[in-house]
Amino acid sequence: MNRILVCGPKSEWFCDKLGKKLELEPIFVEHKKFPDGETYIRIPEETTGKKVIIAQSTPYPQDKSIWELLLMIEAVTHHKPEKIILYTPYIAYSRQDKIFREGEPISIKLLLQTLSLAGATKLVTIDIHKPETLAYFRGPAINVIPVKTLSQKIREYTENPLILAPDKGALNRAKQFAKELESDHDYLEKQRDRITGEIQMKTKTIPVKNRDVVIVDDIIATGGTVAKAARMLYEQGAEKIIVAVSHALLAGNAIEKLGSADIKKIIAANTLPPKSSVEYIDVSSEIVDHLL
Amino acid sequence: MNRILVCGPKSEWFCDKLGKKLELEPIFVEHKKFPDGETYIRIPEETTGKKVIIAQSTPYPQDKSIWELLLMIEAVTHHKPEKIILYTPYIAYSRQDKIFREGEPISIKLLLQTLSLAGATKLVTIDIHKPETLAYFRGPAINVIPVKTLSQKIREYTENPLILAPDKGALNRAKQFAKELESDHDYLEKQRDRITGEIQMKTKTIPVKNRDVVIVDDIIATGGTVAKAARMLYEQGAEKIIVAVSHALLAGNAIEKLGSADIKKIIAANTLPPKSSVEYIDVSSEIVDHLL
Repeated sequence: MNRILVCGPKSEWFCDKLGKKLELEPIFVEHKKFPDGETYIRIPEETTGKKVIIAQSTPYPQDKSIWELLLMIEAVTHHKPEKIILYTPYIAYSRQDKIFREGEPISIKLLLQTLSLAGATKLVTIDIHKPETLAYFRGPAINVIPVKTLSQKIREYTENPLILAPDKGALNRAKQFAKELESDHDYLEKQRDRITGEIQMKTKTIPVKNRDVVIVDDIIATGGTVAKAARMLYEQGAEKIIVAVSHALLAGNAIEKLGSADIKKIIAANTLPPKSSVEYIDVSSEIVDHLL
Repeated sequence: MNRILVCGPKSEWFCDKLGKKLELEPIFVEHKKFPDGETYIRIPEETTGKKVIIAQSTPYPQDKSIWELLLMIEAVTHHKPEKIILYTPYIAYSRQDKIFREGEPISIKLLLQTLSLAGATKLVTIDIHKPETLAYFRGPAINVIPVKTLSQKIREYTENPLILAPDKGALNRAKQFAKELESDHDYLEKQRDRITGEIQMKTKTIPVKNRDVVIVDDIIATGGTVAKAARMLYEQGAEKIIVAVSHALLAGNAIEKLGSADIKKIIAANTLPPKSSVEYIDVSSEIVDHLL
């Protein structure tokens, strides 16, 4: 076999499933902290001349997850592999994609350039915030929105659902889900204050009366936007509201916020370490062909 | 003024002093954590066309410190500065300078290459573990052993001291200190088990009877080697033992270990965040000319 699947410390909740789809035995890297806190990783298997697939997400603590990934790439490069393909389902810093205020870095540019300069030749990811930022990676970069697998689960929990984008920018995602589910879609209007980060929901009447509503998005971070939206939609007569996202970050007290807004279900792709209150769907089947 | 001193989050204990020597008002970067834990930094001053000096060390948590440094470089590059000079007094991962076991990365190579690829044009550091690793940085890289400033302090605490290197590899450092202090020097012999990391001190008789002894090294990490050495030297009749290092990492219970071995004083350059039980010496005067 000329391929090898190397599983980083931030892949342990999905790499067995990925290995099954790839028909490869996953190789889990050795990892520890040195006494002074430095990160140690070691790949316990020969990679010379092989097509190396490195699986590693970049959850909190993001900077450490990123550094682990870079160290894995660096370790592999010494063995002159044929290719280094990264499967990084969640890419941190993807929302710092432009200079919002003078003096800021474009963090996602730094990250993607660094990955390719370290030696990665191809990148496969799930639902990055702005797919056009993948151009910072020097080589083929594939973005997959796991519409099929998430839709299967949406079907279990809803009847004839209305698919709702939380803002106009996410409308295309809502369209894709609506098409897959043979359903209809709409979007909410929101405005974000760039300085305070405060979200304001513009009033807009949506035909939600007695409908099951699915809010779809790439990331659910603090849950603030979705909680506000849900309250408004219930006031307008929605029957049941669920959320389907690629990345359930759920920072701080997000889960409490969503619970108090009476969100009935959170469905997410398995791109981040599991938390309770979320139903995770394995999305390996959607990306496996890109890793071959 | 065509120069600017940008002080990162991991420079706050030395950047005012550095600014004074450079005759520049330090610009401290804005920094915070986003709700999901991502690192935010922003440089609150125009850097266009300037020679930008970025001051940032890389203490624990190293991966975050490194990422902050990279983000600062990335932020500055958007403004087409004339040069980006890094002053990174402590460079993390400098001891992972070769592949000790097959499958490991050369972490220092990754770090130094990444710094130059991000846009840094010159690097100034204090007493890196292996100066030859600086070749991984693409551009001038200056390593300074702060012999002069540390020696001034050694003079205060000792009389006619014997300067001792903890191993033969550090002999050159001991020679430099002995020359500066017009004193004599020697070295200890140790062996490190590459797998367990266990240090064994070979017995060797050193003329320490009734002498003040100064153990000099680049880094004091867990304190194990130095504590062992001190016990042996006191048994051989040493009068007083002090330690002078560039980087007082002092991980875990190092301070307790050194105390129980009756080390009378730990002198260190101000390259890492201050801890009690250590006397820090500002070394700005030794590097300032390299930042001009």
